[in-house]
Amino acid sequence: MLKTLLIGFGCSALVLTIGILIGHFGISKTGSSAPSWASDVVKDVDENFISRFLSEVDNMEIEQNLRELTKVPHMATTEGDEQTVQLMLKRWQDPETGLDQAWREEYSVYLSFPDPKNPNQVTVVNASNSVLYTLRDKEEIYTPDQEDPNVVPSYAAYSPKGHPKGKLVYANYGRASDYKLLNESVDLTGTIAITRYGGAGRAAKAINAAPYGVVGVLVYTDPYDINDGLMSDLNETYPHSWYLPPSGMERGSFNTLYGDLLTPYLAAKDHTYRIPVEDIPGLPPIPIQPIGFQDASILICALDGKMAPDDWQGSFECPYNFGGPGFKETSTFKDSDVKLDIGNYDTVKNSSNVMGVIRGAVEPDRYVIYGNHRDSWVHGAIDPSSGTSVMLEITRVLGRMVKQGKWRPRRSIIFGSWGAEEFGLIGSAEYTEQYFTKLSERSVAYINVDIAVFANATLRASGMPSIQNVIFTAAKQVNAPGLESISVYDNWMKYTNKTSPTHGVIPRIGYLTGAGSDYAAFVHYLGITSLDISYTYDRTKTRARIYPAYHTAYDTFDYASKYIDPGFTSHQAIARTAGNVLIRLADSLLLPFNCGDYAETLEDYLKEAVAQYDEQLKAKNISMEPIKQAVASFRKAASHLHEVIQSLDLINESPLKVRMINDQLMLLDRAFLDPLAFPDKYAFRHVIWTSSSAGRPTFPGLADAFAKAAASEQKTDWDKVHYHLSVLTQAIEGAAHTLTNTI
Amino acid sequence: MLKTLLIGFGCSALVLTIGILIGHFGISKTGSSAPSWASDVVKDVDENFISRFLSEVDNMEIEQNLRELTKVPHMATTEGDEQTVQLMLKRWQDPETGLDQAWREEYSVYLSFPDPKNPNQVTVVNASNSVLYTLRDKEEIYTPDQEDPNVVPSYAAYSPKGHPKGKLVYANYGRASDYKLLNESVDLTGTIAITRYGGAGRAAKAINAAPYGVVGVLVYTDPYDINDGLMSDLNETYPHSWYLPPSGMERGSFNTLYGDLLTPYLAAKDHTYRIPVEDIPGLPPIPIQPIGFQDASILICALDGKMAPDDWQGSFECPYNFGGPGFKETSTFKDSDVKLDIGNYDTVKNSSNVMGVIRGAVEPDRYVIYGNHRDSWVHGAIDPSSGTSVMLEITRVLGRMVKQGKWRPRRSIIFGSWGAEEFGLIGSAEYTEQYFTKLSERSVAYINVDIAVFANATLRASGMPSIQNVIFTAAKQVNAPGLESISVYDNWMKYTNKTSPTHGVIPRIGYLTGAGSDYAAFVHYLGITSLDISYTYDRTKTRARIYPAYHTAYDTFDYASKYIDPGFTSHQAIARTAGNVLIRLADSLLLPFNCGDYAETLEDYLKEAVAQYDEQLKAKNISMEPIKQAVASFRKAASHLHEVIQSLDLINESPLKVRMINDQLMLLDRAFLDPLAFPDKYAFRHVIWTSSSAGRPTFPGLADAFAKAAASEQKTDWDKVHYHLSVLTQAIEGAAHTLTNTI
Repeated sequence: MLKTLLIGFGCSALVLTIGILIGHFGISKTGSSAPSWASDVVKDVDENFISRFLSEVDNMEIEQNLRELTKVPHMATTEGDEQTVQLMLKRWQDPETGLDQAWREEYSVYLSFPDPKNPNQVTVVNASNSVLYTLRDKEEIYTPDQEDPNVVPSYAAYSPKGHPKGKLVYANYGRASDYKLLNESVDLTGTIAITRYGGAGRAAKAINAAPYGVVGVLVYTDPYDINDGLMSDLNETYPHSWYLPPSGMERGSFNTLYGDLLTPYLAAKDHTYRIPVEDIPGLPPIPIQPIGFQDASILICALDGKMAPDDWQGSFECPYNFGGPGFKETSTFKDSDVKLDIGNYDTVKNSSNVMGVIRGAVEPDRYVIYGNHRDSWVHGAIDPSSGTSVMLEITRVLGRMVKQGKWRPRRSIIFGSWGAEEFGLIGSAEYTEQYFTKLSERSVAYINVDIAVFANATLRASGMPSIQNVIFTAAKQVNAPGLESISVYDNWMKYTNKTSPTHGVIPRIGYLTGAGSDYAAFVHYLGITSLDISYTYDRTKTRARIYPAYHTAYDTFDYASKYIDPGFTSHQAIARTAGNVLIRLADSLLLPFNCGDYAETLEDYLKEAVAQYDEQLKAKNISMEPIKQAVASFRKAASHLHEVIQSLDLINESPLKVRMINDQLMLLDRAFLDPLAFPDKYAFRHVIWTSSSAGRPTFPGLADAFAKAAASEQKTDWDKVHYHLSVLTQAIEGAAHTLTNTI
Repeated sequence: MLKTLLIGFGCSALVLTIGILIGHFGISKTGSSAPSWASDVVKDVDENFISRFLSEVDNMEIEQNLRELTKVPHMATTEGDEQTVQLMLKRWQDPETGLDQAWREEYSVYLSFPDPKNPNQVTVVNASNSVLYTLRDKEEIYTPDQEDPNVVPSYAAYSPKGHPKGKLVYANYGRASDYKLLNESVDLTGTIAITRYGGAGRAAKAINAAPYGVVGVLVYTDPYDINDGLMSDLNETYPHSWYLPPSGMERGSFNTLYGDLLTPYLAAKDHTYRIPVEDIPGLPPIPIQPIGFQDASILICALDGKMAPDDWQGSFECPYNFGGPGFKETSTFKDSDVKLDIGNYDTVKNSSNVMGVIRGAVEPDRYVIYGNHRDSWVHGAIDPSSGTSVMLEITRVLGRMVKQGKWRPRRSIIFGSWGAEEFGLIGSAEYTEQYFTKLSERSVAYINVDIAVFANATLRASGMPSIQNVIFTAAKQVNAPGLESISVYDNWMKYTNKTSPTHGVIPRIGYLTGAGSDYAAFVHYLGITSLDISYTYDRTKTRARIYPAYHTAYDTFDYASKYIDPGFTSHQAIARTAGNVLIRLADSLLLPFNCGDYAETLEDYLKEAVAQYDEQLKAKNISMEPIKQAVASFRKAASHLHEVIQSLDLINESPLKVRMINDQLMLLDRAFLDPLAFPDKYAFRHVIWTSSSAGRPTFPGLADAFAKAAASEQKTDWDKVHYHLSVLTQAIEGAAHTLTNTI
């Protein structure tokens, strides 16, 4: 009986268990079963996937990419450029490692080139017009790369044509203040000014000169500013080191605005309305031409006149004089003029962006954009091919995962290989103009990796403060190149750091206040949270304003692989860091943006503004209380949102609630846009990051307006200060509104 | 044994059943059970709820609202205005029938009032300055309402002060063409012009006059234009009918721009930067004053000079002459001048919006906004209190449902009772400036019901084409007032209809191309899909340009309840229709917007543009092909999205997919914004709906630019035409991009 009972119990237990199993697994819960999409919508970033990505990023692949990208010079719209277009398309359309889709987008853009039939020439001519000396127009040949017939001679894109001739003067960096000082000693009417790179924008060196009657400008890179004073190609400069050889010439675009110059705010399609060429603002009004420092030293060391001030002196072994104007009596050039023969022509040509996408699985209408330009001045191994090599390695690793069905990001990823950046960020700017609405509404972030590696000491990062956090997370997971046991993050902190009231000591990120690379249109025109990263050098060890072969015919694979990143481990570290950030932005259930870090920057800006301006503004009856309150509102709103996020039970929340918070985070920077605040600055709309000439770490529109008013003391200029305070106050309050309650 | 077995089986079956029940109901399916929010996110609009709403909207409540709102005159910022603020707050904060939250928002806005110490006066004075005749400055008293000491005397807000005096001329509607024609016969220097309302904006009547040397302007409403010719207050006009009595005077705001005039693009807070008063554009440069038609007839019938053309003649029983200038020899006014003494003063005063919200349950970060202004010129029974009475009835019915826990909308609803609309849509404009980013990002639609009932013949609706659909749906569910068995929709179609290629014969909706009410900032500045509805009259039965008591002291509860909507059934129909639209926009799982209807309008616009401009543009080498392609792209994208929507299995789709499509629909109008396309038109940014003076049913910027170029034949003006074609092409292509694939 006991046995029977036990059997009975046993059977019953078995039957009960079967019943439970049938009930649980066999019968769907009508009306309450989990829908098919339920597990997808709550999926978060997968750390294992990130580990796998990091391990698959291969330095040798990057090296191979760079080798292919730098086979020939690939200046925008040339045959070499087309080869890189084809390379990108081939890679991104590869059935094994390509993206979901890749295509090209063309724009008809306004460019400027030297005329092979009227080559640019700079000469020293005597009174009877005999040529005493002709300056080099191309670099000396050290490797076969410089022999390529498609190496463009040195020129200043957008310099006007012309044949100015005059006595030479030395004008330091060609800043407005430099010409002002020089003009106190020398009558500049009819002179040619020689200037050095640095201190002012390229076009500014000519724009600042013209009002004084200067008729032409030369520009060179002083060994002081780029080579730590070294000059000899016998053993000091490339091919013996990374330093610039004496004949190296920095080409460049000499416009002030970015984007296609003929089609402001409109994508440059064939049919698009174009403004008259003579209406383009910000171009050099007089001819200008870049030369090498060897030629520059011959000219400068022969100059007559008073010796220039100490901070005008460079590394040549002679005093830098102002110029008589013109040369010393003792010089072979005495009484001679310098003559520029500039034959640049302007033309509208087709430039291509190459675009590629990985479609998002859950939120395809949210875009993480990653881009770099493709065009170079010559071979462009570092600028921009280091970045493109990195981008291709990221797309290879991710593309393969997608093709193998092992991964698909939550959000869509858009890759952009921009055209004609060197002429003024043209490809990326036209792209943002063409797709303005779509990109404004849907872009989570833009990641720019242009020059991936300047040198191999440390990470450098710039971006909106809210994105700092995800850069840190990524940098902590990547080993510093050449340092087995230390992360990119920890290494970075040793080079540049700051103390944050919230986080303690952290690496210092820079701000994207200018238009130095393709992030400009994303930051300033669209207000998209952006970042720009690279590996760079130890500033305590060199004064170089940039890597020395920048924009010269020496920026080659040989140069990059020998002196910038032997072994390509810094490239690899950038690919790992940037790719890690990319995956986190694309896959995180909740966007990894921190509004509190934005508040910290606004507080820093405010502190500086109050310290610098409050007293004088009070005297003008302009109160800073409203902007103080706005920044406090922003901090309060950021803290509130932070608490909301902290209290989320993330995977059990409604996907619409998570999306709502993500939208708040995604759109934060849009709140700072004002399309009318800076009428003289093309496509600068972001009131926190707009470029400023006031040189203060504070609100740029306010700083510039204040500097102008303090100088002029005009009522209308003080009004402008008040106006900018109101614009800022409304924008910051508006941003705070978007972060507080959604209703 | 059998028994035992049976018992055993029975027990086992029971145990099994228990097991199944436990398994099914007792154990949650870890990782696959339906989350708590799952049923909410797929909830669609509830037709039963709409029926209930419709049945609860009560005409007697609306009547009572109107009675309360019109107790005293409530011109913006007066004591009467404050009483209406308190009324709105009381209603919206009511614990039984109020909203989730209600509050006031104040702005310091620039207004213009007559000065009680220097009352405005218009007189006829002879050569020795003796006053021969003094015109009325207020209406005659028929009901106690006109006796209220707070009835503001007639004046033109923003007219400058001054005491101009001169010979009188008659200038018809005061259009530029009217003054031009008049000037061909009469030397206008130093004259006073009398003009009639209609044909041109209020301020334009003075702005157009000044260049001819006219020194002051009178404006009146001709019985031809408002009263179907009737004039006698003995038996023809109010209080005997809805017609305007002879002393009725249309007050109004005589500015050209909308929003606070001193703080363009900035919310008018105390601390906000204000432009100098002398920099305000678009104000009358010379004094102007509205008068009644009785006084106007005395002046006009005494005028000397040539008889004006036929289309200048009105209903007075005399020929309308140009004026000698001045009066006939046979008139008692011979040789006399008309003198204006205008003492208006300008001032900055606090004006309040009253805001109320119902928080959305599922998508609180999506807003449906419903608004009307609160301020009137005098008692404002029709303008705007008819609309406010309707709004209060909608909030009473919905508020009670919310308070009782019976309903909460999917999306948030924001109600706005705007201040100072009569002075230039100020309250709504300041609101959109203050919350620009938040509203741009999150607003689904704006519903404006200002004058709810002009008359009781038919519905009138204007809006973006994409919203037409939901108006139709709502109008089909509401009975036409006074017609038991016919819907508002079917009745409407009898009065105004068109044939759509897609839908066949449908009611014709108007477009919101101007700035006639508070929708302006939502349409033109923010690009939010908007609609404006009212009940109105049968145009075949009257020529009245608006209801006759508009902006006069006769717009009272007595007038409204006797002659505009006895029984308040038209008010009720508007409350039901607007409320129905509101609930559908707030509750529909998928937004009820139809992009195909937008495409139809763009195609109509294009057809007109091609017919009017293509030939002449070809001659100027400007191609219309790109805009044709853009409109075709838009149509294709709209059709594609329509197919996607048709193929949705709505309640089984991922909520993020539905949200994605809703975002596409919600943001469609944003794609048509261009903040730089119309630099001379404040806050007009919508390239499809911007106001135009060309009078063509086509793209406004193109039409205006073409008209200018065709008149001037200047190259720069043809360039502007090309520019506007490019702006339109890019905007329409951009809109199409947002509707096609989301990546």
